[in-house]
Amino acid sequence: MRRAMARAAVGDDDYGEDPAVNELQRQAAGILGMEEALFVPTATMANLIAVMCHCQRRGAQLLLGRDSHLHLYEHGGAAQVAGVHSQALPDLPDGTFDLDRLELTIREAHGSRYHPRPELICLENTHSSAGGRVLPLTYLQQVRRLADRYGLRVHMDGARLMNAAVAQDVDPAQITQHCDSVSLCFSKGLGAPAGAVLAGRREFVAEAWRVRKLLGGGMRQAGVLAAAARVGLEHAEATLRRDHDNARRFAEGIQELNSPVCSVNLAAVETNIVMVSIRGGWLSPTELCEHLRAVSEEELAETGQAVSVLLFPWSAHTVRAVWHRDVSARDTELAKNKLEFVARKCQEKLALGLRPTPPSAGGS
Amino acid sequence: MRRAMARAAVGDDDYGEDPAVNELQRQAAGILGMEEALFVPTATMANLIAVMCHCQRRGAQLLLGRDSHLHLYEHGGAAQVAGVHSQALPDLPDGTFDLDRLELTIREAHGSRYHPRPELICLENTHSSAGGRVLPLTYLQQVRRLADRYGLRVHMDGARLMNAAVAQDVDPAQITQHCDSVSLCFSKGLGAPAGAVLAGRREFVAEAWRVRKLLGGGMRQAGVLAAAARVGLEHAEATLRRDHDNARRFAEGIQELNSPVCSVNLAAVETNIVMVSIRGGWLSPTELCEHLRAVSEEELAETGQAVSVLLFPWSAHTVRAVWHRDVSARDTELAKNKLEFVARKCQEKLALGLRPTPPSAGGS
Amino acid sequence: MRRAMARAAVGDDDYGEDPAVNELQRQAAGILGMEEALFVPTATMANLIAVMCHCQRRGAQLLLGRDSHLHLYEHGGAAQVAGVHSQALPDLPDGTFDLDRLELTIREAHGSRYHPRPELICLENTHSSAGGRVLPLTYLQQVRRLADRYGLRVHMDGARLMNAAVAQDVDPAQITQHCDSVSLCFSKGLGAPAGAVLAGRREFVAEAWRVRKLLGGGMRQAGVLAAAARVGLEHAEATLRRDHDNARRFAEGIQELNSPVCSVNLAAVETNIVMVSIRGGWLSPTELCEHLRAVSEEELAETGQAVSVLLFPWSAHTVRAVWHRDVSARDTELAKNKLEFVARKCQEKLALGLRPTPPSAGGS
Amino acid sequence: MRRAMARAAVGDDDYGEDPAVNELQRQAAGILGMEEALFVPTATMANLIAVMCHCQRRGAQLLLGRDSHLHLYEHGGAAQVAGVHSQALPDLPDGTFDLDRLELTIREAHGSRYHPRPELICLENTHSSAGGRVLPLTYLQQVRRLADRYGLRVHMDGARLMNAAVAQDVDPAQITQHCDSVSLCFSKGLGAPAGAVLAGRREFVAEAWRVRKLLGGGMRQAGVLAAAARVGLEHAEATLRRDHDNARRFAEGIQELNSPVCSVNLAAVETNIVMVSIRGGWLSPTELCEHLRAVSEEELAETGQAVSVLLFPWSAHTVRAVWHRDVSARDTELAKNKLEFVARKCQEKLALGLRPTPPSAGGS
Repeated sequence: MRRAMARAAVGDDDYGEDPAVNELQRQAAGILGMEEALFVPTATMANLIAVMCHCQRRGAQLLLGRDSHLHLYEHGGAAQVAGVHSQALPDLPDGTFDLDRLELTIREAHGSRYHPRPELICLENTHSSAGGRVLPLTYLQQVRRLADRYGLRVHMDGARLMNAAVAQDVDPAQITQHCDSVSLCFSKGLGAPAGAVLAGRREFVAEAWRVRKLLGGGMRQAGVLAAAARVGLEHAEATLRRDHDNARRFAEGIQELNSPVCSVNLAAVETNIVMVSIRGGWLSPTELCEHLRAVSEEELAETGQAVSVLLFPWSAHTVRAVWHRDVSARDTELAKNKLEFVARKCQEKLALGLRPTPPSAGGS
Repeated sequence: MRRAMARAAVGDDDYGEDPAVNELQRQAAGILGMEEALFVPTATMANLIAVMCHCQRRGAQLLLGRDSHLHLYEHGGAAQVAGVHSQALPDLPDGTFDLDRLELTIREAHGSRYHPRPELICLENTHSSAGGRVLPLTYLQQVRRLADRYGLRVHMDGARLMNAAVAQDVDPAQITQHCDSVSLCFSKGLGAPAGAVLAGRREFVAEAWRVRKLLGGGMRQAGVLAAAARVGLEHAEATLRRDHDNARRFAEGIQELNSPVCSVNLAAVETNIVMVSIRGGWLSPTELCEHLRAVSEEELAETGQAVSVLLFPWSAHTVRAVWHRDVSARDTELAKNKLEFVARKCQEKLALGLRPTPPSAGGS
Repeated sequence: MRRAMARAAVGDDDYGEDPAVNELQRQAAGILGMEEALFVPTATMANLIAVMCHCQRRGAQLLLGRDSHLHLYEHGGAAQVAGVHSQALPDLPDGTFDLDRLELTIREAHGSRYHPRPELICLENTHSSAGGRVLPLTYLQQVRRLADRYGLRVHMDGARLMNAAVAQDVDPAQITQHCDSVSLCFSKGLGAPAGAVLAGRREFVAEAWRVRKLLGGGMRQAGVLAAAARVGLEHAEATLRRDHDNARRFAEGIQELNSPVCSVNLAAVETNIVMVSIRGGWLSPTELCEHLRAVSEEELAETGQAVSVLLFPWSAHTVRAVWHRDVSARDTELAKNKLEFVARKCQEKLALGLRPTPPSAGGS
Repeated sequence: MRRAMARAAVGDDDYGEDPAVNELQRQAAGILGMEEALFVPTATMANLIAVMCHCQRRGAQLLLGRDSHLHLYEHGGAAQVAGVHSQALPDLPDGTFDLDRLELTIREAHGSRYHPRPELICLENTHSSAGGRVLPLTYLQQVRRLADRYGLRVHMDGARLMNAAVAQDVDPAQITQHCDSVSLCFSKGLGAPAGAVLAGRREFVAEAWRVRKLLGGGMRQAGVLAAAARVGLEHAEATLRRDHDNARRFAEGIQELNSPVCSVNLAAVETNIVMVSIRGGWLSPTELCEHLRAVSEEELAETGQAVSVLLFPWSAHTVRAVWHRDVSARDTELAKNKLEFVARKCQEKLALGLRPTPPSAGGS
């Protein structure tokens, strides 16, 4: 990837003259089944531009998931920059909306001069907060029909779209055929240093070009980043398939432990994310993560090795594990062993009526 | 009220020289226990100004009820005009928030540079969508403490604040002492033609003055409206107490019917709003409203009178009745009789295995 | 006017049911030659709504006068609320733009993806900062053609439009035929307590209705204000013609003084505004205004009367006098005499080599 | 530079863990004499963030040059994204403001509740539209004093700041000491593929970090770009000094031609930009540029070489030439010769009473 960057033929992309960017955009549009694509610094900018371009009329309303990345982690750009009212709907555990509720919410406002105008539905696929869940193709079709019935557009936050395609074993374009636009991130699973694309119809992308410039996302010789993104895109399928396999193996390992300390809902592991549930409330997610990161003599003595595993506390009772191209099958095996060791240690203390103390308060 | 308007001594309020406006503002500030108050054309503008003045920093986040007037019926002004991200929380049936959930939502973002900044909590009192429910004083105190703990402000959408004060039999200032600002509407229960006030600290109101000008709410000789508002304010207690009595009597009458067609949750009737639930799904809210509005020979023959009653379809299974100063005890009695008549007729049809047809489809 | 307000039949304008408002809107649309009109609290709101409705696309650019009311005195609503980029052009002394410069500015950005999109031209007629100058009809026609050539809309800030019509002795519709929308204020020369209208095409006004609601300008029983506005509108021509006559008589009187202290450019007095220039820099505008407002024994002794005249310091060397329905021909005569007296006194002091001291520093 | 990019040690800059970015930010802050600096994708984003961070209060007003890059070429982001009212002042030929006019504009609005709030002055240094003019240090000092007197901040659009420092032979920090914040672009004269920094006080940069995230400028492994920027920064002085020398030599060459077709104001050539004025109106800027780009047999025959020179039509009578690191002294010599040849050919045609036809209409 570094080699591709060093060799990239670049030009001034502000004048559309950067060959590496042009090539990446052409290629991404093809893969995503859209007329055109635009290279942008981040997926956050891609989503913001999409909201701004789809919602041009005053009083536009955006329907999106309450736990979606766009709603929670993009600094409220829909309101702050785009001036668009967000109507947030509850995300079901599988990352979808209740379609009746979605329709009811649209109908309440549709055509009424007393309400904002529903204009755009944003989907997230795979759905990060739901644990990397893949949106079913029939669901996407139903959302599309609903959108058409009321004249709305559909944007897909496809930061992890390639994971969905790999999991469903379909071309990305079979997923995005139900959307008006889609964003795709190169710096997550695809492993490029930075960059994303926003794809859609020709006029939409022409409009997106202007908004990218407005937001300050129009870099000059962006080709050095685009070259890396192309490499990521070309290796996407193999890379992500391996990540998914590793994630599933890890989850199966946890399930087999049958531990009173932690568990996994195997049916919910569809891509490269595993949500580990903490049972019984003996440990907080933060405490479990500290145990996993810590390395001790005891661990070495008992297991013959001492490894540090980095997971993230997610919600009140869950810890989140994410796979990417730099995590091997061997790393996965070690991580599973470490969790097994930590779970066993906690269980022993619990059996003695003790509360397991996390390492920061004195070592495990 | 018309007389007061015709006699009002006015001046140019743009220079602070309208005596009727000044007097109203002084009086309203006193009643609301705030340093100053500002006269504005509508409660919608009062709420919008409050959001704009409290949320000055980039990335501000507003916590409000998903079913609040501000979130649903003010055209998304928080996003569209103020550029403020709304984090909408579910409203409980009594119009309050689950305080743990409120705190969790604040804590998630508080102090994090990855999230918008929680800066303002908006309460609605009485809560319109909840059926005119009054927020308990202890609840207000708890919200205040929570806000203080995280450095947030509290704005009360008090369009119906006087109803809450009458229902709780306290001075409005005992309610608003827990808030940084409050809006009050003169054209709902108080019966004035138009206008509202926004009250708060001196500097807040000075800032609100500028924003009112920006939005185009700075009228010249607003005194003619202010004079009417003062009359409404002076008669508020007596007027609203009567409305509440009428609403309760109506609700009790419905309950006594013990009808299989409709019912009322008497415990939820606290002010001038009654939500009538439709049982069994035999009628849609719109159909019930049509039956109530229609006047028929049959009604005259059976009851000796034929009256038209105007209620509003509210949600999937409820119809909403609101009392204001022009609805008398006698009107209330007639409305109850009409509902009894309609319920009886429907019941008769249902007993015959027929679906009651609303009048628009051929008369009741 | 008060009588009309007291008798007005009103209704809930939020549902389009206020007969006084509907009648005013119908009448105003007719006078302005537009399909529909919308009653709003202020002319500032009318202008802001116009900008928001005409400029719906992202990146819209507004061309307006650098000294226009919209640019200077409306708190930057075009940017702050509408998010529209203002390209301000120099206003010529007669209130017009240099048309070549206007076209050049449009052409520079028109069709270029590197610039904001020119979408709206705002004209002010009569032009307040220019001293109530009336925009020539041929000029309006030229602006219209220019706008059509590049696909722009034209909005007229017609707060003082009726003054222009009276001065040009034409129907207001002959002026507004060159515009897509126009605002008209009732609380300036027309003498109503508050209110304005925004008029244009049917779809434009439907859109304006939504934005009025958003901004909080949708009052319930606005009919009490509308009734007053109708009275103002009906008497407009007679009232304004008298104002213009008075203003001209005053200006002629000043010119005849041939004073070394102050002068008037008679050719620039077209409506109800007179800009008095201060010669030689002996007095600041603020000082001259103080002399005019002051009442002294000396004045009484010398002229047999002592009157206070209220003018406004305008720019570095000018003072502004405005006529409205409560200033009579007799008042005008007295004002002229007072200015003559003040000018004479200053001249006497100047002849003695003294700088005239304004009254606040010790009386004239 | 490519090598530096290929070797850069990177990390996740979203967590502040990218060493190449951190090092560049540290180094840039040092050079610019500011507490901290933030790496952003473009100078346009740096300027937009600066406006958003300095102007937090509602109703903020920005004072900037009518011909500044920020006003003309950044898609109106100040209004569209930041919601800030721009008060555009005329730029004098040397890129400065008339300070009396600047003060008058501030004073008009300062402290008045009838006007937007003047909060920020934006300077551009070097000033691009003025032909790369360098703002004098005494001027910067005066602007600073003025800003302090009225409590305003000063932001410098320093996309070409290093050119100013080289031209004035001072440390960049001696220039920026008069500013609260400064942006610096790496992809213009400094020759890096993309990126810019925004520098200022610690709290300002912390705020800027949030806004960068909001706008979608927070790239993950931005280090690959940062590494290139560092190389550009290190070679800045030598690179730019050569560019300035070349530009001056070119300008002197044109002046010596003493041609009736084109001329240069040598006093205005201070950095790497030369504005070539077209005399007599015989040619439009576009036509001159076409002659310069064209390559002909005639040129080869007469001068022994045939080169293509790329200049930009700028305004009605000027053509703009810009030097950067890939233009050598030899290239400069050739360009001068080419202009001499084109001017001579035009002159010959003019002498014959012919209008010179540009090559696109049939070859020179």
